[in-house]
Amino acid sequence: MQRYFVANNQLNETSFSIIGEDVKHISKVMRMSEGDELICINEAGLVAHCQITSISSAEVKGNVVQYLAENTELPVKVTVAQGLPKGDKLELIVQKGTELGAYAFLPFQATRSIVKWDEKKSEKKRERLEKIAKEAAEQSYRNVVPKIYSKLSFQQLIKESENHEIKIVAFEEQAKAGELTNLATSLKKAEVDSSIFVLIGPEGGLTNEEVADLEQAGFIPCSFGPRILRTETAALYFLSAVSYHFEMLR
Amino acid sequence: MQRYFVANNQLNETSFSIIGEDVKHISKVMRMSEGDELICINEAGLVAHCQITSISSAEVKGNVVQYLAENTELPVKVTVAQGLPKGDKLELIVQKGTELGAYAFLPFQATRSIVKWDEKKSEKKRERLEKIAKEAAEQSYRNVVPKIYSKLSFQQLIKESENHEIKIVAFEEQAKAGELTNLATSLKKAEVDSSIFVLIGPEGGLTNEEVADLEQAGFIPCSFGPRILRTETAALYFLSAVSYHFEMLR
Repeated sequence: MQRYFVANNQLNETSFSIIGEDVKHISKVMRMSEGDELICINEAGLVAHCQITSISSAEVKGNVVQYLAENTELPVKVTVAQGLPKGDKLELIVQKGTELGAYAFLPFQATRSIVKWDEKKSEKKRERLEKIAKEAAEQSYRNVVPKIYSKLSFQQLIKESENHEIKIVAFEEQAKAGELTNLATSLKKAEVDSSIFVLIGPEGGLTNEEVADLEQAGFIPCSFGPRILRTETAALYFLSAVSYHFEMLR
Repeated sequence: MQRYFVANNQLNETSFSIIGEDVKHISKVMRMSEGDELICINEAGLVAHCQITSISSAEVKGNVVQYLAENTELPVKVTVAQGLPKGDKLELIVQKGTELGAYAFLPFQATRSIVKWDEKKSEKKRERLEKIAKEAAEQSYRNVVPKIYSKLSFQQLIKESENHEIKIVAFEEQAKAGELTNLATSLKKAEVDSSIFVLIGPEGGLTNEEVADLEQAGFIPCSFGPRILRTETAALYFLSAVSYHFEMLR
């Protein structure tokens, strides 16, 4: 059944209302009509099986058939801090990372980031990434849409990381040096609902100064296996490993 | 140091020779000259630190400085059988799957594959995918370039899978039904050098008949976590989980 995320005030005990771009998707793309059924999920992650009673060009309305006890969220909350990569790689990371269960994405300006985002570009990019995250969350049966942060500086990022219990930085020099235990050791320290902050550098990697600052701030440098991963592959490896560790091995 | 894969007869105990497209890469892209160093890896996975003694338009030649005891291969051999997906998704799967350690890729014509490859297109696609795999293997410090099969029919694929010890099919109905143990149970049965065959359907998924045939042939249907992954994300999840299981948790 097709799934749509709605604001909390658009879904109550007995009825729902969908507005905005999803109206067109329901009427034009899915060609639904009165009596058809869909799933509504609100910002609190509540999932409702619903039935349409009316469709106008501005709003789709209907009744709640029943609330469902569905939860597909990772048992830990993973925030992916990604050094701004080139081209449309961040879109790939957000799309695939959403499927894989990320809780939030935080783009930051790394020393070796080739691209620069000014404030205007940053806001436009954030809106685009929010849209990608919403669509991917609907397709992958998520209960929540990952949060997309505005772009932060490196110093702001370190400040933001303070609120997280486990902090990991992907560091390819660890892979080259044959380090293979830090990742699993760090994940074993996490408990249900732990908040994990994982930081991945841009294409050129992190500078030694950045890595030193991160270690100072409590980040554990980890390899993600012995092979050297591209920047856009590292987040996907991490999220898959987290899923395997917390959802499949237990 | 830049890495290049060569045929077995292009690397011996004391010298190496590079021909073909890599010559241009070395001289024009990397702008190397006599005395510069690079890494040669032959088809047997032997890794040699080398020094250039001459560059012509057709050949780069030089000496072996020393052989290196490097091995970045997964301890199990994973063949990814992928139902033909739309667009350039197979290129993404091969590029990222190579970084993540896949041993081979096997495209097959699934009932719900939208695209069809005739023999001519199949060969052209295979050559393109081989090139992508070689470049990704060089960048990710692999010892071997994954094999790219010619496109197989579903029946040929089942025949081919007989040579593999562990056979897994990604099945989203398992995810929807809340099954979360088959993947780890299957991986726990694997030993070093085990050969694992993982099959992933195209965008529309596998038909019930295909799944029944695969179960008959010894495939274990597994979910890859509770979320519904796109076809191109499933292989990456699986390879990351295999790396975490065999390389990081031990």
